[in-house]
Amino acid sequence: MNALDRLVGHLTKLPGIGKKTAGRLAYYILDADPTYAQQLAEELQQLHERIHRCSVCGSFTETDPCAICSDPSRDTQLLCVVERAQDVRVIEEGREFRGRYHVLGGLIAPLEGIGPEKLAIGQLLNRIRRNGISEVILALNPTVEGDTTALYLHKILKDTGVTVSRLASGLPVGGDLEYADRLTLSRSFRGRIPM
Amino acid sequence: MNALDRLVGHLTKLPGIGKKTAGRLAYYILDADPTYAQQLAEELQQLHERIHRCSVCGSFTETDPCAICSDPSRDTQLLCVVERAQDVRVIEEGREFRGRYHVLGGLIAPLEGIGPEKLAIGQLLNRIRRNGISEVILALNPTVEGDTTALYLHKILKDTGVTVSRLASGLPVGGDLEYADRLTLSRSFRGRIPM
Repeated sequence: MNALDRLVGHLTKLPGIGKKTAGRLAYYILDADPTYAQQLAEELQQLHERIHRCSVCGSFTETDPCAICSDPSRDTQLLCVVERAQDVRVIEEGREFRGRYHVLGGLIAPLEGIGPEKLAIGQLLNRIRRNGISEVILALNPTVEGDTTALYLHKILKDTGVTVSRLASGLPVGGDLEYADRLTLSRSFRGRIPM
Repeated sequence: MNALDRLVGHLTKLPGIGKKTAGRLAYYILDADPTYAQQLAEELQQLHERIHRCSVCGSFTETDPCAICSDPSRDTQLLCVVERAQDVRVIEEGREFRGRYHVLGGLIAPLEGIGPEKLAIGQLLNRIRRNGISEVILALNPTVEGDTTALYLHKILKDTGVTVSRLASGLPVGGDLEYADRLTLSRSFRGRIPM
């Protein structure tokens, strides 16, 4: 196997990158200025040395605690619970939320052997007890696993006295009723908002 | 800018990789076993040292001449002319063609300032004159640039006495007349094959 095939093989492991796309990327890198490959290689090499999990919220960071956890201008009473570290990035880009985050590290999925004990739920309870958090927003995907996890957390968090809410689910903005699936439509009916 | 953002920035330069996809890839690499990032980095670092252009056909290779140019079992009389090195890979995967290749390094595109002098046409003529080539197959894309280049090469190659042909253009196999564009349909009429 030559160097090009090995590179294609490595790229194929990335999510959403099939053999054809991997080939196109590899040839692009070959055709491009060699400094590009060098820079990309350096970043990859240093990635895991530089980036770690934040010991407070569990998201990826170069400093510990992360920039969000150590930002005094953010609302410390408001906690947004997400499945994965990349969800923090998505929500931050929306610039809607001004509290802090908590990364669960997954969702409850009994069929895949993922129970609540594998998620950062103990740490979540500790943060709520210690840090005077008044509201928890569950920003979990509207899937079976997301629903299961949200229900479980709601039950667990009842005794702590915090307000627990979940992101609204319904028709996407700019979407069309005609293309909405049955479940989304049903949710948007149940979650209808008085005008 | 932190290490993650820099990696995302580098990945965004790849063709077909937008900011969202780059983010997904970067988080996948972060989540994966660190050896993956290390291996990918090593391959990228060594890529340009290991892979060069074949001095005969112009495709990418670790040896010179490349495996195809030095394979005695391949038909030396048959030459397939392609635009880019990656086209060789695509055609090789089809396992239809058993001759050798010649990479032009582009297509004639006057609007982008690419004239015939920027392509490996001199080398093509040399190979035809010296190596007893009897047939040249132009495997150029059915685009305006591909058509222009094919016409130009046909004119140039007339005096050499070789047979010049071009890949058939028409309806894709498994395709539907209903979805064919006007130009493709027109080509498939002009190129119709007696049954």
